[in-house]
Amino acid sequence: MTLWGGRFQSSLDPQAWALNASLSFDRRLGQQDVRASQAWANALQAAGVIDAQENERIHAGLQQVGHELQQGTFAFQPGDEDIHTAVERRLGEILGPLAGKLHTGRSRNDQVATDLRLWLLDHLPELESALIDLQSALVMRAEADHGTLLPGYTHLQRAQPVLLSHWWLSFFWPLQRDRERLANLVKLTAVLPLGSGALAGTPYPIDRFALAKNLGFDRPSPNSIDAVADRDFVAEFLFCAALTGIHLSKLAEAVILFSTTEFGYIELPDQYATGSSLMPQKKNPDVFELARGKAGSLIGLLSGLLATLKGLPSSYDKDLQEDKLPLFQAFDTLGVVLPVLAGALRTLRIYPERMQAGLEAGLMATDLADYLVAKGVPFREAHTVVGKVVVWAAQQARSLAELELAEYQALHPSFTADVYRVFDPWASVARREVTGGTAPAAVATQLELAKTALQNRLISTGEQES
Amino acid sequence: MTLWGGRFQSSLDPQAWALNASLSFDRRLGQQDVRASQAWANALQAAGVIDAQENERIHAGLQQVGHELQQGTFAFQPGDEDIHTAVERRLGEILGPLAGKLHTGRSRNDQVATDLRLWLLDHLPELESALIDLQSALVMRAEADHGTLLPGYTHLQRAQPVLLSHWWLSFFWPLQRDRERLANLVKLTAVLPLGSGALAGTPYPIDRFALAKNLGFDRPSPNSIDAVADRDFVAEFLFCAALTGIHLSKLAEAVILFSTTEFGYIELPDQYATGSSLMPQKKNPDVFELARGKAGSLIGLLSGLLATLKGLPSSYDKDLQEDKLPLFQAFDTLGVVLPVLAGALRTLRIYPERMQAGLEAGLMATDLADYLVAKGVPFREAHTVVGKVVVWAAQQARSLAELELAEYQALHPSFTADVYRVFDPWASVARREVTGGTAPAAVATQLELAKTALQNRLISTGEQES
Amino acid sequence: MTLWGGRFQSSLDPQAWALNASLSFDRRLGQQDVRASQAWANALQAAGVIDAQENERIHAGLQQVGHELQQGTFAFQPGDEDIHTAVERRLGEILGPLAGKLHTGRSRNDQVATDLRLWLLDHLPELESALIDLQSALVMRAEADHGTLLPGYTHLQRAQPVLLSHWWLSFFWPLQRDRERLANLVKLTAVLPLGSGALAGTPYPIDRFALAKNLGFDRPSPNSIDAVADRDFVAEFLFCAALTGIHLSKLAEAVILFSTTEFGYIELPDQYATGSSLMPQKKNPDVFELARGKAGSLIGLLSGLLATLKGLPSSYDKDLQEDKLPLFQAFDTLGVVLPVLAGALRTLRIYPERMQAGLEAGLMATDLADYLVAKGVPFREAHTVVGKVVVWAAQQARSLAELELAEYQALHPSFTADVYRVFDPWASVARREVTGGTAPAAVATQLELAKTALQNRLISTGEQES
Amino acid sequence: MTLWGGRFQSSLDPQAWALNASLSFDRRLGQQDVRASQAWANALQAAGVIDAQENERIHAGLQQVGHELQQGTFAFQPGDEDIHTAVERRLGEILGPLAGKLHTGRSRNDQVATDLRLWLLDHLPELESALIDLQSALVMRAEADHGTLLPGYTHLQRAQPVLLSHWWLSFFWPLQRDRERLANLVKLTAVLPLGSGALAGTPYPIDRFALAKNLGFDRPSPNSIDAVADRDFVAEFLFCAALTGIHLSKLAEAVILFSTTEFGYIELPDQYATGSSLMPQKKNPDVFELARGKAGSLIGLLSGLLATLKGLPSSYDKDLQEDKLPLFQAFDTLGVVLPVLAGALRTLRIYPERMQAGLEAGLMATDLADYLVAKGVPFREAHTVVGKVVVWAAQQARSLAELELAEYQALHPSFTADVYRVFDPWASVARREVTGGTAPAAVATQLELAKTALQNRLISTGEQES
Repeated sequence: MTLWGGRFQSSLDPQAWALNASLSFDRRLGQQDVRASQAWANALQAAGVIDAQENERIHAGLQQVGHELQQGTFAFQPGDEDIHTAVERRLGEILGPLAGKLHTGRSRNDQVATDLRLWLLDHLPELESALIDLQSALVMRAEADHGTLLPGYTHLQRAQPVLLSHWWLSFFWPLQRDRERLANLVKLTAVLPLGSGALAGTPYPIDRFALAKNLGFDRPSPNSIDAVADRDFVAEFLFCAALTGIHLSKLAEAVILFSTTEFGYIELPDQYATGSSLMPQKKNPDVFELARGKAGSLIGLLSGLLATLKGLPSSYDKDLQEDKLPLFQAFDTLGVVLPVLAGALRTLRIYPERMQAGLEAGLMATDLADYLVAKGVPFREAHTVVGKVVVWAAQQARSLAELELAEYQALHPSFTADVYRVFDPWASVARREVTGGTAPAAVATQLELAKTALQNRLISTGEQES
Repeated sequence: MTLWGGRFQSSLDPQAWALNASLSFDRRLGQQDVRASQAWANALQAAGVIDAQENERIHAGLQQVGHELQQGTFAFQPGDEDIHTAVERRLGEILGPLAGKLHTGRSRNDQVATDLRLWLLDHLPELESALIDLQSALVMRAEADHGTLLPGYTHLQRAQPVLLSHWWLSFFWPLQRDRERLANLVKLTAVLPLGSGALAGTPYPIDRFALAKNLGFDRPSPNSIDAVADRDFVAEFLFCAALTGIHLSKLAEAVILFSTTEFGYIELPDQYATGSSLMPQKKNPDVFELARGKAGSLIGLLSGLLATLKGLPSSYDKDLQEDKLPLFQAFDTLGVVLPVLAGALRTLRIYPERMQAGLEAGLMATDLADYLVAKGVPFREAHTVVGKVVVWAAQQARSLAELELAEYQALHPSFTADVYRVFDPWASVARREVTGGTAPAAVATQLELAKTALQNRLISTGEQES
Repeated sequence: MTLWGGRFQSSLDPQAWALNASLSFDRRLGQQDVRASQAWANALQAAGVIDAQENERIHAGLQQVGHELQQGTFAFQPGDEDIHTAVERRLGEILGPLAGKLHTGRSRNDQVATDLRLWLLDHLPELESALIDLQSALVMRAEADHGTLLPGYTHLQRAQPVLLSHWWLSFFWPLQRDRERLANLVKLTAVLPLGSGALAGTPYPIDRFALAKNLGFDRPSPNSIDAVADRDFVAEFLFCAALTGIHLSKLAEAVILFSTTEFGYIELPDQYATGSSLMPQKKNPDVFELARGKAGSLIGLLSGLLATLKGLPSSYDKDLQEDKLPLFQAFDTLGVVLPVLAGALRTLRIYPERMQAGLEAGLMATDLADYLVAKGVPFREAHTVVGKVVVWAAQQARSLAELELAEYQALHPSFTADVYRVFDPWASVARREVTGGTAPAAVATQLELAKTALQNRLISTGEQES
Repeated sequence: MTLWGGRFQSSLDPQAWALNASLSFDRRLGQQDVRASQAWANALQAAGVIDAQENERIHAGLQQVGHELQQGTFAFQPGDEDIHTAVERRLGEILGPLAGKLHTGRSRNDQVATDLRLWLLDHLPELESALIDLQSALVMRAEADHGTLLPGYTHLQRAQPVLLSHWWLSFFWPLQRDRERLANLVKLTAVLPLGSGALAGTPYPIDRFALAKNLGFDRPSPNSIDAVADRDFVAEFLFCAALTGIHLSKLAEAVILFSTTEFGYIELPDQYATGSSLMPQKKNPDVFELARGKAGSLIGLLSGLLATLKGLPSSYDKDLQEDKLPLFQAFDTLGVVLPVLAGALRTLRIYPERMQAGLEAGLMATDLADYLVAKGVPFREAHTVVGKVVVWAAQQARSLAELELAEYQALHPSFTADVYRVFDPWASVARREVTGGTAPAAVATQLELAKTALQNRLISTGEQES
């Protein structure tokens, strides 16, 4: 069954049908289609198009359709072009001709835009939950790994000592930004297209503010032509997903590196590692590699949709049907990756002594420069002096801590016997007590901030009931 | 001059230097580097690292540097690796060794992240102004073209009559969403990295809240490792730019179509059209084609940066240097496209009679179905009946308005003599008085909404002074 | 069952399993896995690792597995991690311990790379067939629509008359380039990874040249580390697919435009058009819109894979598992779009009189300039003169053909009475007899060239048997 | 000056001019524009449009223009819209009205497509040279680092020993594929558009085969409408560039990893490393990080152009002007990155003893399984047994080589005293003598193959003279 056969004299070519039909993926919108249809029936009653009894029967019929969809007992027909057609077809079987009144004054153009927004609003809280879960795993690690130092890296070269807790939390805040972005997205998404008809607005006196409220939207869309065409919310979701993917790829890259024999900072538990079909000794971080790899796929979903949207001519063009698969695919990707990473983080083992072993005196070279600054040497000069110290030590194959005081003084007269205190990595981190710094006190404050952020959901889970 | 020579014994290979140097593009950050350096000097004074007099001299020196940069009298040296180096080198020439104290406790890692955020915060108001200007051109058209109908299209097929004002405004709201997105971006961007040092936080007792305030940021970043790595704000800007590009590409596509001989709805003024080197009769909508084409380039800038960010291992990696060119390129692209489109819209000529001629009775087929609905026929049945009417009329090569009443009644008994009133396009639009609909009254309300949106800047122009 | 359990003490977390498992999509490689395994068994026999009888039994067992997969009777188990595991597990059920010898000296790393290349080599001929079919539809149109002129467009403005046959053929050649690209891809793909082991090469004396020949590959890969990592062939396929998508999007855009009421050049048959759920009169070119929209998705598949590949550290990384879905998705997309477009082209109706009506005298403005050139006026001057003619005619609201000779002569003395012959569009096209030009004679030659290209497959259909 | 002013009554708005003008980037096509113009003049003479003397004067004039462009003495004017206009304007200054004959029968549409193809054909040999140079640096390393083993990695976990020469060569072959791709691209590019006019073909009897030969093209384009629109060659170049970028990013990632303190396999020379403005001890692999990061930008250039091309309606649309910047940018990016990587590779220092230290007995676990296979145990069982050996050894915190024979035998009876020979990494690599394997003999053969590939240029450097 199609919703548009009247003027056509031969039916669609089977291959064209296969290209055109969207039921295989838009069936995920079933519950949303039912809910939006019930709200529409209410609006039609309020507008005097159907009476209360008709509305009641339509509600009950849709209730049944929704139930069948949920239970998996809904019998899709080969001729169901899309979920909207399937729902209306089934409603007709249940109600008879009355079902034919439901589509009064609406179009699939405003209907599908509404369903898709509803679906996203329904599912964003789940995504926030999964992000929060990963954040809480990071907080758990930050607390559990208290008291451990590791080398901090820039350019993948050892740079300065940092608290392991601080390092874990460095992956927390990008996810917090992701949550903020999703909360912004909720506002963009909660604008109701329904009532826009095909493109010109419905000719029935629908109260779209009431309709919006009924469906948990903030407000009706201000322009019907734009309303049926607007897929900004899908693009923005895909952007959010891609950026989350990138954040996860960075975490993944770090865990993969730290799990190498060479770094040896981290060991993955057996439940989150995989082996080799050929090499019996291997223990591979597949789940983190997949997280990293899927960041690429998420980027692709975004650029694909943007390319699809570029240059479309009308209000509604069928090209827009390409919006659903990437939306679902991106959502599912994060849905499968986030909990696995959270689980792996919670159960991995760290090797503090290996991390400690990486804290050679060279990482305190900046502190050494600051030591000279404290003695009145301008930083730029101090930096140059310490550069020479580093070269000298390297030529001697000794560490900075192993040089004699005389050697230091040969390079700059301000060095005195207290210079060796500089090479205590704990003293180094303790000096960085600035907001956001790696000193234990600063990290404790940061941890409180993180825990507060964990407590505050930014996306209400009751969107659909409000 | 580099800021890091001390430990190196041979200088950089010239080709490697050329690859590594960023001055050719990061010189655009000159004013921001000066401003952030002044704020940093204040912070160093407050932290007791330099005294008031030193701070004053540094301020004056930086003032001079900033002035030279602005006037174009700043003499860059072949050895200036980047803008930060150039500014500090010049400051050294002006102040002598005192200049060497400025870099105390900061790193180029937190410095460049700060400069780039400042640059964006400084320039987003301009972008909003350009968006507002284009929006106001659309409002101008909506008002000027009052009283004109045109065919509304879906699938590029004539669908239903709409007000031309309504159609113009359909391009207004996407730009409004773009402004909202940019306003969200301001919040994401106004988080201060300065004070994060290379990655572990500065060891000096800097009040980062005061520093943030001093530079017009909302708050300091909560984690130093994340702070020097975070380029979410660049990615989000590129996403905003790409989506704006897509919105413009849709407008461009519409104008290009409507300017064809076949549509004939629009004629571009000579100031915004170009000719052919071969065909003397041509009048080409180049500026709209370029707007459409540049949407593709903007999409590329986004996917490029995302791919660059994917899988980076440390806090700061040099890969991040690839952030500036796309940011500047995207900003400049919109800066050149937006005012041209606004100018073209304001001055183009419309052909209302051509639009009117497109409103054949077939566009009122939905109204004909609604006519039957009003007579009690369920919509789905009404839709099928009208489909048959359409086929019948096509076979007769007559319009719907030209069929005899008897022919109507042969297809459904509910048709009566008043059926012909349906084919008045003004009646059709008048029926769509719902919020967001195309009826004159609804469009008048929408126009008020649009004007209010025009009045309210979402991004304060005084960011940098606050 | 996994192929790697030995050293692990707890099994994979169920969510990690779900993330890691690839059977849901790599099962499409079943036949290739069987075929490559048989070839591997041959190679093992030749290397003396198994004896002839063992090889025979393994062949028979794999035969059965292949048959079960083909018939859909293969019972996948919940524990089958991927298709390789499933095949080996099932082989074990059939053969007992002997099955355990098959994986000697190979790794899933070289196995999956081989399977995927085989799959592509097996399926590229199908894709070429689909491209040829669309090309032949274009040739059919070029022949059927012989004798029709239409306005040629640049910048979507009417430019010069062209033969409709010429216009149809302009979509033929991009597809020819696509076929050439696919033929190049065959060469890149037909390099055998099998025998590379996990990354270092198999330790058994396998004759990889014989193995390559046995599987229809050109030659073995020259470096085992590269062989297990190389996904260039997937990237290049996705590029080919994206570019084909773009070629189809251009054709689609043209058909969509020409099917508008305003152009009215083309009418889609009912079998390839769809209707509206709301507007009974609509006849929408959905299949062409989908073709256009899917070009965007294809671009996304390419940029996604490229982003995934960027910066991978080792030879084989699990990120590479993200290669299959985009490959299959791109292939399937073209597989569903190409035949529909071919079918639609073959059956659409053209309106020659509408096209003819578009050939106003203005399209011969270039010919008018050439007329002056023939009289000795330099082209640049002639172009300017004709520009003035065009303006004059526009001001008079008359066509070029309607101006008086005196008016012409007032603008340039070289105009004489024969000027009016210029405005015959058939004369205009006839003048363009250059190779590749739109003159009937040139198009006839071009058509022969096209037909020859149709006859010559560039990709042999017997790849897998060779 | 524009080439099209005739019919326009007011000049282009200055901002529109700025958007429209392309001189700032297309001036790079100067030499190609001159050369193609000279060839066109020849063709015009052969067609009888100009006489020999005129042709000679035009040639001389163009020679002068080309010389001025090369010397940098060419004075561009504010009104030069693009390079074609500038060249023709200057030619007019030199020759007077005769210059106005040059544009007879051609259009900027076929002209710019020709210039751009010529530019690419002129510059591809340079790119191949740069690729060959990097390949030769890899060959140099493979020869110089003869006799060194290192751990081979999969999933970034130590997998099996490989020859360092083999590892270096694993980066050689992707570049060889890149060269092959570029050679394929030459064929695609060497199709001449000139003579296609604006879209319909030139009306003058131009011998396009001779013209093609004259300019070093293989043949003329077969369809004029397609010829002015076809940018496949740009897209394919950007794809080639992106894939090369990805290959470089993999090499870069590896060098960055191996240069860490933790791996310690590689040290960059001072000429190819950079320091930190804050941390005096740092030695950063910036040039490799930039190579990796620029892979992202190259991916973006490709997806940007593809998005631009998607859905274009006519033959020539102005959107196509967006083709040049990405082409030049991609070319320049590779031009700056390739030689730097080659230089860095040639001069970096390796630490064989560190690599050797990584070859713990566990890397021979596969060999241990093969040892059992040689004793008649099916591989799958052998794999499981060795897995248990690995676990047992790990529990004892001993290496595989340190287990007692009794411990081995307790796990499988086939172990005998010769088991310890398995743990010699040189024996492990020697066993992999298969084609493409890591055994010294196989690598020697591979090296010969690589050197042969180095000797054979795939792209002739004399393209333009042929």
